[in-house]
Amino acid sequence: MSEQTQLIPGNSLIANSPEEGRALAVKIARLTIKITQPDAEVRDKLRPAYANDAAMLIAIGQTVAMEFATIAKANNYWQ
Amino acid sequence: MSEQTQLIPGNSLIANSPEEGRALAVKIARLTIKITQPDAEVRDKLRPAYANDAAMLIAIGQTVAMEFATIAKANNYWQ
Amino acid sequence: MSEQTQLIPGNSLIANSPEEGRALAVKIARLTIKITQPDAEVRDKLRPAYANDAAMLIAIGQTVAMEFATIAKANNYWQ
Amino acid sequence: MSEQTQLIPGNSLIANSPEEGRALAVKIARLTIKITQPDAEVRDKLRPAYANDAAMLIAIGQTVAMEFATIAKANNYWQ
Amino acid sequence: MSEQTQLIPGNSLIANSPEEGRALAVKIARLTIKITQPDAEVRDKLRPAYANDAAMLIAIGQTVAMEFATIAKANNYWQ
Amino acid sequence: MSEQTQLIPGNSLIANSPEEGRALAVKIARLTIKITQPDAEVRDKLRPAYANDAAMLIAIGQTVAMEFATIAKANNYWQ
Repeated sequence: MSEQTQLIPGNSLIANSPEEGRALAVKIARLTIKITQPDAEVRDKLRPAYANDAAMLIAIGQTVAMEFATIAKANNYWQ
Repeated sequence: MSEQTQLIPGNSLIANSPEEGRALAVKIARLTIKITQPDAEVRDKLRPAYANDAAMLIAIGQTVAMEFATIAKANNYWQ
Repeated sequence: MSEQTQLIPGNSLIANSPEEGRALAVKIARLTIKITQPDAEVRDKLRPAYANDAAMLIAIGQTVAMEFATIAKANNYWQ
Repeated sequence: MSEQTQLIPGNSLIANSPEEGRALAVKIARLTIKITQPDAEVRDKLRPAYANDAAMLIAIGQTVAMEFATIAKANNYWQ
Repeated sequence: MSEQTQLIPGNSLIANSPEEGRALAVKIARLTIKITQPDAEVRDKLRPAYANDAAMLIAIGQTVAMEFATIAKANNYWQ
Repeated sequence: MSEQTQLIPGNSLIANSPEEGRALAVKIARLTIKITQPDAEVRDKLRPAYANDAAMLIAIGQTVAMEFATIAKANNYWQ
């Protein structure tokens, strides 16, 4: 089933650990970009734009923080 | 009833899986744009503006993250 | 009582459905703009500025997402 | 006691209704600006900058949405 | 112990009142800036940049709103 | 195990105190930047860009506020 998903890898928010949950947050954030701009060539051209721009790196960090808040809650904070 | 909705497809936040919930988040985010700028022609002209701009792609990602937080909670994180 | 409100239509966060709750979120977001810039003429002049600007449309979408998060919770996600 | 407060009017998050709660959110948002820029003359000069700028009006709306989320929760959504 | 803290004054999120909680939110927001830019001279030079810029004042307001949301919850909204 | 983590130091959201939790929030925020821009040389070049820019310092503060909200909740606000 996970092979058919486009937006949530494995179609689950459950992760074994905070580290795995954070990696999932990063992936989910990237998949939203991918569905909004499906052309891989365009995305490749945009990569240097954000990876070399401090403001955009910070904005990506905020996106990951938001996704992680949801994932952490879904996993009851791994308590 | 879902045919009459303009803002929430199917008039429900319930989704069968994280993947469906995420797709719903993407749709809801788009419908807000649509009601704010109802002219399809204008929206079509704006599409390249954000799909080719790294900062806007990130901002869209943040919007989807926010909508998904609500949908995930409504679905008790699909636990 | 709802006629006297300036910020929350009907002075209530309760909505009959997700669609109505979303429409309420849109209205509340607009009323905040209205109280911050009470001059209707100025607001009318600003309308094209945001309805034709991709970045601003996205920012409006984020605002509505935030308002909806509160309304959805107030309605226990219409479960 | 409320006369001595600088940041939270009445030193309380409790409001009688959604409308009053929203008005409190607006006031709290403004008081943060005031403590960050205590010079009334400077604030008066900045007012046209944001009241006539669509992007800033939207950003103010996001701030009020955030404050309201906290106030609404403090009041158990007036249920 | 509070003398050794750099990020959370008093090493506690507990505040006696909403006003004190809000003041704590303001302090915590400032301490994050301080740890990111530890050079007091640089921070002093940046102060006019944000205290005289409407967009930055609004952004600071959003930061304080975020910190306050956490502090208010930690104090059970002073109920 | 913590040596292998790239995103969450110690692979845990648990912290002994608000101060430690806040420091963890700062570290997690930085590690997201690091995974997005893995080239240390580029990151070093970007550092002055944000440490000397008021708007970026504020945006970093917002990121840390978001991460801290999650960590504080994971630790039940150290009550």
